[in-house]
Amino acid sequence: MDFTLPPYSAPDFSDPALAGAPIARFETAPADGVAPEGFHATSIFPEYAQIEPGRWVLPEHSRMDCVLVREGDALAVREFRNLRRGDLVAVGRGENGEDGIFVHTRGFGDPSDPEDKFAFRSRISRETAFSSDYDELYALLRHEREHGRIVWVLGPAVVFDFDSRNALVNLVRTGFVHAVLAGNALAVHDLEGSRYGSALGQDIYSRQGRLLGHYNHLDAINTVRGLGSIPAAISGGLVTDGVMHALHAADIPYVLAGSIRDDGPLPETVADAYEAQDRMRAEAGRATTVIALATQLHSIATGNMTPSYTVRDGQVRPVYFYCVDMSDFVTTKLANRGSLGARGMLTNVQDFLVTVDRGLNGRMAREG
Amino acid sequence: MDFTLPPYSAPDFSDPALAGAPIARFETAPADGVAPEGFHATSIFPEYAQIEPGRWVLPEHSRMDCVLVREGDALAVREFRNLRRGDLVAVGRGENGEDGIFVHTRGFGDPSDPEDKFAFRSRISRETAFSSDYDELYALLRHEREHGRIVWVLGPAVVFDFDSRNALVNLVRTGFVHAVLAGNALAVHDLEGSRYGSALGQDIYSRQGRLLGHYNHLDAINTVRGLGSIPAAISGGLVTDGVMHALHAADIPYVLAGSIRDDGPLPETVADAYEAQDRMRAEAGRATTVIALATQLHSIATGNMTPSYTVRDGQVRPVYFYCVDMSDFVTTKLANRGSLGARGMLTNVQDFLVTVDRGLNGRMAREG
Amino acid sequence: MDFTLPPYSAPDFSDPALAGAPIARFETAPADGVAPEGFHATSIFPEYAQIEPGRWVLPEHSRMDCVLVREGDALAVREFRNLRRGDLVAVGRGENGEDGIFVHTRGFGDPSDPEDKFAFRSRISRETAFSSDYDELYALLRHEREHGRIVWVLGPAVVFDFDSRNALVNLVRTGFVHAVLAGNALAVHDLEGSRYGSALGQDIYSRQGRLLGHYNHLDAINTVRGLGSIPAAISGGLVTDGVMHALHAADIPYVLAGSIRDDGPLPETVADAYEAQDRMRAEAGRATTVIALATQLHSIATGNMTPSYTVRDGQVRPVYFYCVDMSDFVTTKLANRGSLGARGMLTNVQDFLVTVDRGLNGRMAREG
Amino acid sequence: MDFTLPPYSAPDFSDPALAGAPIARFETAPADGVAPEGFHATSIFPEYAQIEPGRWVLPEHSRMDCVLVREGDALAVREFRNLRRGDLVAVGRGENGEDGIFVHTRGFGDPSDPEDKFAFRSRISRETAFSSDYDELYALLRHEREHGRIVWVLGPAVVFDFDSRNALVNLVRTGFVHAVLAGNALAVHDLEGSRYGSALGQDIYSRQGRLLGHYNHLDAINTVRGLGSIPAAISGGLVTDGVMHALHAADIPYVLAGSIRDDGPLPETVADAYEAQDRMRAEAGRATTVIALATQLHSIATGNMTPSYTVRDGQVRPVYFYCVDMSDFVTTKLANRGSLGARGMLTNVQDFLVTVDRGLNGRMAREG
Repeated sequence: MDFTLPPYSAPDFSDPALAGAPIARFETAPADGVAPEGFHATSIFPEYAQIEPGRWVLPEHSRMDCVLVREGDALAVREFRNLRRGDLVAVGRGENGEDGIFVHTRGFGDPSDPEDKFAFRSRISRETAFSSDYDELYALLRHEREHGRIVWVLGPAVVFDFDSRNALVNLVRTGFVHAVLAGNALAVHDLEGSRYGSALGQDIYSRQGRLLGHYNHLDAINTVRGLGSIPAAISGGLVTDGVMHALHAADIPYVLAGSIRDDGPLPETVADAYEAQDRMRAEAGRATTVIALATQLHSIATGNMTPSYTVRDGQVRPVYFYCVDMSDFVTTKLANRGSLGARGMLTNVQDFLVTVDRGLNGRMAREG
Repeated sequence: MDFTLPPYSAPDFSDPALAGAPIARFETAPADGVAPEGFHATSIFPEYAQIEPGRWVLPEHSRMDCVLVREGDALAVREFRNLRRGDLVAVGRGENGEDGIFVHTRGFGDPSDPEDKFAFRSRISRETAFSSDYDELYALLRHEREHGRIVWVLGPAVVFDFDSRNALVNLVRTGFVHAVLAGNALAVHDLEGSRYGSALGQDIYSRQGRLLGHYNHLDAINTVRGLGSIPAAISGGLVTDGVMHALHAADIPYVLAGSIRDDGPLPETVADAYEAQDRMRAEAGRATTVIALATQLHSIATGNMTPSYTVRDGQVRPVYFYCVDMSDFVTTKLANRGSLGARGMLTNVQDFLVTVDRGLNGRMAREG
Repeated sequence: MDFTLPPYSAPDFSDPALAGAPIARFETAPADGVAPEGFHATSIFPEYAQIEPGRWVLPEHSRMDCVLVREGDALAVREFRNLRRGDLVAVGRGENGEDGIFVHTRGFGDPSDPEDKFAFRSRISRETAFSSDYDELYALLRHEREHGRIVWVLGPAVVFDFDSRNALVNLVRTGFVHAVLAGNALAVHDLEGSRYGSALGQDIYSRQGRLLGHYNHLDAINTVRGLGSIPAAISGGLVTDGVMHALHAADIPYVLAGSIRDDGPLPETVADAYEAQDRMRAEAGRATTVIALATQLHSIATGNMTPSYTVRDGQVRPVYFYCVDMSDFVTTKLANRGSLGARGMLTNVQDFLVTVDRGLNGRMAREG
Repeated sequence: MDFTLPPYSAPDFSDPALAGAPIARFETAPADGVAPEGFHATSIFPEYAQIEPGRWVLPEHSRMDCVLVREGDALAVREFRNLRRGDLVAVGRGENGEDGIFVHTRGFGDPSDPEDKFAFRSRISRETAFSSDYDELYALLRHEREHGRIVWVLGPAVVFDFDSRNALVNLVRTGFVHAVLAGNALAVHDLEGSRYGSALGQDIYSRQGRLLGHYNHLDAINTVRGLGSIPAAISGGLVTDGVMHALHAADIPYVLAGSIRDDGPLPETVADAYEAQDRMRAEAGRATTVIALATQLHSIATGNMTPSYTVRDGQVRPVYFYCVDMSDFVTTKLANRGSLGARGMLTNVQDFLVTVDRGLNGRMAREG
């Protein structure tokens, strides 16, 4: 199966409904972090504002639930907290041009068209067939490895299992991972895996509890804190395998967002939730495909930051968003956002990773 | 990884606690289907009754929640409904010899021994590592293909997906399936898959809804009912692939138990729940390994019928019971029954089947 | 809140699209249990067949996935297995009159109309608000107590808990239960509750395990089997409280469908799945409201048998179908069937029953 | 039902096994945030260190996965990140005195004693009876209102529903809430509920989608940000009901921890995860009962911070920890921590809150 990017159909601004649209209005933010009343909030879709007659501008890096800020002839999409007093914020809640703003929901086809291969699908259940999802995903990832940017969002369960941890390492090594968004725990238990072969004190292969195993992750954290950084632990030879090691070796960026559940934390973990959000959004905004595995918090957070489109090399293209989880609470939340590129798969991420590595790299992780 | 059957340690009846045990008492069933008061109920473990001084007898095919019926010098394990007036039923509820009955819970090792490789494991969650479960399963199934009897319990979801249906067919063809226990729906949707490429009207590969697809399973049923049997549909060339076709080709027995949810039913479906139970128990009683996939009803029913041991070629050996499901409600119910041979795996059975076929047969189902 | 039955809008057969419709075709069943090729399958909606020019007939008791059989000037809706050779079966798969058959999906309003109070709702999750569902349910049940027929479908969990078992008994006593559909286990554990205060050996109030408690349900079964019937056990004074006792006292019909999981079974349990289906359908066909609690098998089975409408006192009226469960697998399956009257609520049925009893009867079950 | 605090049995340090124990060793932290090698990590249980012969010291406010820091004659329990270079940290991993440290797991009884009313219970499922849990909880909360400190951990779902939001407000007003730990979203949607009657744009009673309802929570946030604080919005008359209003009126402390999912955030939300953790721990350390509802992140985080005991008025007493959720993933994680005081209840928190308010306050929230 080959993958072809669906072409983007820009809006027809000569259409009478849009041709007569007013110029978008911008009002100043009354204080730092505060939008003017009647602000326009962004969606996951491409949105155009008419900033002068006939000139409709599309922001390059959008995200939902933000505001449009005029910066010269361009538009920035900004979180409320990042507004500065005096910023020019678009106002008006019409989505069809009546306020000079057009939300373009069908740039890549009609989500309700049953003939559309990437049509919006009815909700999935644990009984949903997904053979074709795997094949589509393989084709997509092969394309994206060359022409896109694949961002993985990872819950700690991906390193709790020997085979899935190896599969993920393989995917990093073979070029299918361009950035990772995760929490402190992913890195902690991956480092524990390298130091002690365990996760939370259980052997990641045999699942045998280790003697005093509950110390393993604390010892791993304390060691890295003592050395000052994960790279220091790797270059010091204390961490010799695993996901963090592979990311380091391939110079792949990662964001570890701090949370109230954390032990430690590791030196690289970002304590401030909003600084973490900014860093995550920087990655999400450049992503062409996002694959979110087994983390409700980070999956939904990243989903909130990821638009349905991105502008790459001057072209508008869709962003694909896969959410893989055992619970359909999170897959449904993300898959049914109305975007053609959103997919949910209900399975254990351990099997998912091993299967994807096998599908892409033609062998089992164990044989690597 | 090689598999070795754990040896069975028979009870030491010369132990003082057992040496002084009385002869087991048997009383007559007062009516058909009714046990005498104080009946002894069986468990999943080997149970011995002392029928004369120093002669302790083990029934060959036990199951839990039944009674022990003396038949000459042997013991039958019988459901209440299958008792006949006058049957000699063991009475007494002691399990440690005090009533002449000994329930032997540690014949294959101590479930609470953490050093025991097959030790009773703490409950699993969706974050539990299961790399070693797969490897153990591969070794076990290779052993059982030659020396045991592998019974599969199948929910309909296993044929809803192109890849998993093919993987299951591969496993049948390569000798890893010795009997199948399922419901009407498994066969219906498998036959629908062969006739129309769909399950419940959705393409099993692409998931596209078929035009008037809700007729597909009804047409499949009606066709087979018209021909009189599944074998007739196969030999008539109307069913050319799939699980039922593969079972037929390899002459593998199956039981299709009827239920109140059924359409049709197919001619082979057993309408009477207790006749179905008897037929299932006949298979479960000969099983050395049971693998139950994605069906709460049939998994728990089969679990109820499957003892923790079986007698094969005169040797007492453990019965392994794998339960694979997305919901830990059913895996926990089955895995935590206290038997060393019970395992739960929380994942989508589609991935499970594809992974197991690949692990055993060294290739992906699609390449078959 | 008062409840008013939504009026039924019969189809306008003078509409040009229907006025020119042909007479429905009927062909003979070629054998017992086999429909002619091209049979028309029923849905949950009112379906009319034009049996002579201008005469459109509606069957009184429909159910989905059956066929229409002409019986004189009336139409019966029959399961495949209940067809007899020579029965006149409607053929043609058009739903809009082209084959003389009209499927009327909007008799009670437009499911996609957002203004419709009982409009089809988007899927629910565990975070869905349901305050108004409770209030609507109270109003509905008060109406149905006088003017309808309330059928409850019960999983065994409803008698595992002291408060919810009492709440259900209260609902029976206060007239809100007109029939019960369940399995053997519901009755078994309810009788166990009366005999021993336990369910599966655990005290239903304190949850303390009883000594040898695993015998309790077997003893309860054996006692009732010895007496020959549940009524005999009640009139003999051996069962003095609980759900079966209350149903017996109020002369409320129940169907206990047998399954392959059953112990016993109790004398009243129906062994044959299709005889059980027929009896269940007889109740479902007269139901005006169905409330299905905590049983995947019986809820889906009953959903399959329950049409979206019924004819009562010559009037076509909707059938309401509530499905209450912890898992949205089953609530979604049932609630999203496209009928205006289908509702799902995600919660523990123990809380649900206590809340409903309190809402209807103005007090807590414990105070009863 | 009355509630009586179980007495605490202090360890018997004259027991030979402890009488001969060495003095605990303390080593200096080599750097800020780094523990010495071989550090002792704390558990949820009371832990004593022998700081001079015969003098065993118990820290007042413990939490698991921290280290013991000697401060004069007292012991502080400190997170790794809060260590300062030179802090004296206990080393040694023995738990039975061999390193001068004793972990006292049975101060309130033996978790494995089946006679113990508050004995450690086997894992719960959605079929577990919980009538007695409710009654025990009512008795406990009535006791704690006078003599303890009840800390609630709240997911946003508690304000998504009209009845449960009112029930929670009632519980605040009637004195059963002494502190609240939550995230930004709880406050956002509660304020949205007061401003617009909606949560995420859906009416919290009728569930009707509001026109442009997706703006409601953003408008609520922007308004409060403009005013500078939640109290300002309340005293300005812009927020007149709901949970935040009730907490403000009763002067009850709350911590809103920021997360990467947040919109806004509200001015009170704590951006830094570890500052939030410190503030949460300050409340958790004073708690005598914790009730965690419908939030995986905050429930587990708070569970990590909450010891099994607290010292109140010089007395050691247990801390009760209830976790209520639809998913047993989180309830199991928290309930099975081995503490006598941990409980899980599997239900919808909406029903739970309405039921608890009814049980404590003798009426339905609606009647309030």
